[in-house]
Amino acid sequence: MRMTDLIEKKRDGGALSREEIRWMIEGYTKGTVPDYQMSAMAMAIYFRGMDMDETYELTMAMLDSGDRIDLSAVSGIKADKHSTGGVGDKTSLVLCPMVAACGVKMAKLSGRGLGHTGGTIDKLESFPGFSTAIAGDAFLRQVDRVGFAIAGQTAQLCPADKKLYALRDVTATVASMPLIVSSILCKKLAAGADVIVLDVKCGSGAFMQTEEDAFGLAKALTEVGRRAGRRVVAVVTDMDEPLGNAVGNALEVKEALAALRGEYTGDLMELCLTLGTQILREGGAAADDGEARAMLEKAVESGAALEKFAEFVRAQGGDAAAVYDPALLPQAPVQMEVPAAAAGTVGRIHAEDVGLVSMRLGGGRAAKDDEIDLAVGVVLHKKVGDPVAAGESLGTIHARTEAAAAEAADMLRACFEIVPDAVTRPPFIKGVVR
Amino acid sequence: MRMTDLIEKKRDGGALSREEIRWMIEGYTKGTVPDYQMSAMAMAIYFRGMDMDETYELTMAMLDSGDRIDLSAVSGIKADKHSTGGVGDKTSLVLCPMVAACGVKMAKLSGRGLGHTGGTIDKLESFPGFSTAIAGDAFLRQVDRVGFAIAGQTAQLCPADKKLYALRDVTATVASMPLIVSSILCKKLAAGADVIVLDVKCGSGAFMQTEEDAFGLAKALTEVGRRAGRRVVAVVTDMDEPLGNAVGNALEVKEALAALRGEYTGDLMELCLTLGTQILREGGAAADDGEARAMLEKAVESGAALEKFAEFVRAQGGDAAAVYDPALLPQAPVQMEVPAAAAGTVGRIHAEDVGLVSMRLGGGRAAKDDEIDLAVGVVLHKKVGDPVAAGESLGTIHARTEAAAAEAADMLRACFEIVPDAVTRPPFIKGVVR
Repeated sequence: MRMTDLIEKKRDGGALSREEIRWMIEGYTKGTVPDYQMSAMAMAIYFRGMDMDETYELTMAMLDSGDRIDLSAVSGIKADKHSTGGVGDKTSLVLCPMVAACGVKMAKLSGRGLGHTGGTIDKLESFPGFSTAIAGDAFLRQVDRVGFAIAGQTAQLCPADKKLYALRDVTATVASMPLIVSSILCKKLAAGADVIVLDVKCGSGAFMQTEEDAFGLAKALTEVGRRAGRRVVAVVTDMDEPLGNAVGNALEVKEALAALRGEYTGDLMELCLTLGTQILREGGAAADDGEARAMLEKAVESGAALEKFAEFVRAQGGDAAAVYDPALLPQAPVQMEVPAAAAGTVGRIHAEDVGLVSMRLGGGRAAKDDEIDLAVGVVLHKKVGDPVAAGESLGTIHARTEAAAAEAADMLRACFEIVPDAVTRPPFIKGVVR
Repeated sequence: MRMTDLIEKKRDGGALSREEIRWMIEGYTKGTVPDYQMSAMAMAIYFRGMDMDETYELTMAMLDSGDRIDLSAVSGIKADKHSTGGVGDKTSLVLCPMVAACGVKMAKLSGRGLGHTGGTIDKLESFPGFSTAIAGDAFLRQVDRVGFAIAGQTAQLCPADKKLYALRDVTATVASMPLIVSSILCKKLAAGADVIVLDVKCGSGAFMQTEEDAFGLAKALTEVGRRAGRRVVAVVTDMDEPLGNAVGNALEVKEALAALRGEYTGDLMELCLTLGTQILREGGAAADDGEARAMLEKAVESGAALEKFAEFVRAQGGDAAAVYDPALLPQAPVQMEVPAAAAGTVGRIHAEDVGLVSMRLGGGRAAKDDEIDLAVGVVLHKKVGDPVAAGESLGTIHARTEAAAAEAADMLRACFEIVPDAVTRPPFIKGVVR
């Protein structure tokens, strides 16, 4: 087989066979298919797409390029959740304890990642002593006993995906449906859960900018996941503004704790209830959506979810005092309000730009080894559709210095589009695909 | 500037600016733009194309990546000719002496190349002592004095094109109009001639398989060449069968000599007269096409063209005796006829496959350092449209051994499609674009 022939076939609109895809991915992983051929192939796939058979085979070939986590030692149904990413996304911190409190186990692998805030791992390090360096039997035992664990990735999962994703990132071939589907799913399949719930973001800052594309991605993910023998549900959600109100590591932990205490009822809780409902129903813990939602709400009201979160923090070596007293979490020395220049209604909040404010304050990472500041960030007081009086605060900046806060305040003000007329907020949950 | 942004721009159908193209080609030549980004860009160009401005800027950027030949020391108008390649193409050997005999000078650079037969340089080495290792002043003096020279490429012309072509070859991005145009023209511009005549092949074995594509390529070549300040004419010709009758190094030299003696009047001579007419007219040596053609025919009839060829062989150190006595050229020990299995008319001759026969006999090169056998090859006795009687010879195999000849004979027979009905040969010269 020659890679040039495979590129030509795809370039001309042909479908690659199972054998061709496996040969290509094995060769790419070993290095016998060079980057320059793989990037030409990725661009050909960008233009020509892949059918369901090809997408499935690509996913399985990338899955088979590395290790798999074996969750069979954990009793009961195991679930996993993935989000296509967004500014202010602290969903895992709220969803995992809610679901675990209802009896479905979650074994999550997480990363530090690059971006506007740290990854879930960084956020959890707001608890002194907390460690995600658990693996193997310890990881499985915790999932079984506590109901969930969040570990840093140690096993060599999907090396082909890791290599291909890095290549796509620098060759303008990220935004290709079959490449996105296979990249997301191979890792979820390798992580071993029976039930996989996917949060597919839709909007100007997301991979999928239109609802049509987002639903297309959701359908492809569920279909390929099902062919791989898993129960997969995708929830399409809006990400034209940040999720929740907090953007920044410890600030997001505080918001997650407020949600677990039942004090927060905005889009973040709506998303956790929707994702959790899918997990409980697919996991067989609830007969239908209504029962599932009631169980999740009760887990919050009763304090069981918050208690589960504290148990999780302790199990991974952290000091859980801050779970009950969030004032103990890292706190920035400077707080500065950002008053609105004029009255009106919030027409839009540019999520990516809010992320850049957090980044600028030191809350995110541009390079892999950058230190991040857990305390800094932004808390929004207004979301799309909210009325605003002149001089009313749009949000609070949490910064290291007055100068940094002042600069960030100007940046945050510019993230808001204030319009004279009333604004109807579009529905946050756009649909569920299963 | 970031290469990823440029790839994305082209991927989304945007036009690259002069600055962007120059930055990209300079970076690629230096190695700061890696192969894997350039191949993704090439594939994006394959799908999105380039407008005339972009194609021109790409050509000029590749031209500026290396040296140029300065022909100003040669008096008068200097012409150059390029063919997009074909099986049995010995045009330069006939055209150059014809044109030089009419007073227009030709300074040609040639290569050995890979393929079914050697390049022009290999063919000329059929004359004992002949060398193409002339450069600098010696090359210029010969062009000025003799009227033409054919040299191996020594100067570092268009290194960007050399690197990009090698990359395109292994990433299925050869067949892109703007990439073909810039690759051909940057080298012709670097070679310094005032008049450039291009033979654009059209047919199943060529880059451009349809007449529409071939004329599109011809128009793009002439337009970009004109913008670069040269007089450029493109002739679109058919290559559904080999050019002339001989395929093989010394065999092609023999055919070229026959043409220069006026003994050959088929498609090869028609092509040389057509290309030569463009050169004489654009070079100001003839007032119109009629006068140009008459001058060229007279150069052959009078023996002036053959004499010019002998002068050229001597000037480059070769023994010119074989010019007047072709029996002195390398000759294979075995000749074998290939009789037709049944009567009919030649409907088609698969040119590429005839090339493979020559290759199999040892007349071509698969890798750069392969030795080639100058004596072997094929001489066709029938071309498309010719009637054939059962048992009549379709061609003669010239081989090293009986066994090789027998194998080649079977291969050659399979190159012919013999049909029962009469066949009208399509016009060989499809048009002239200027």
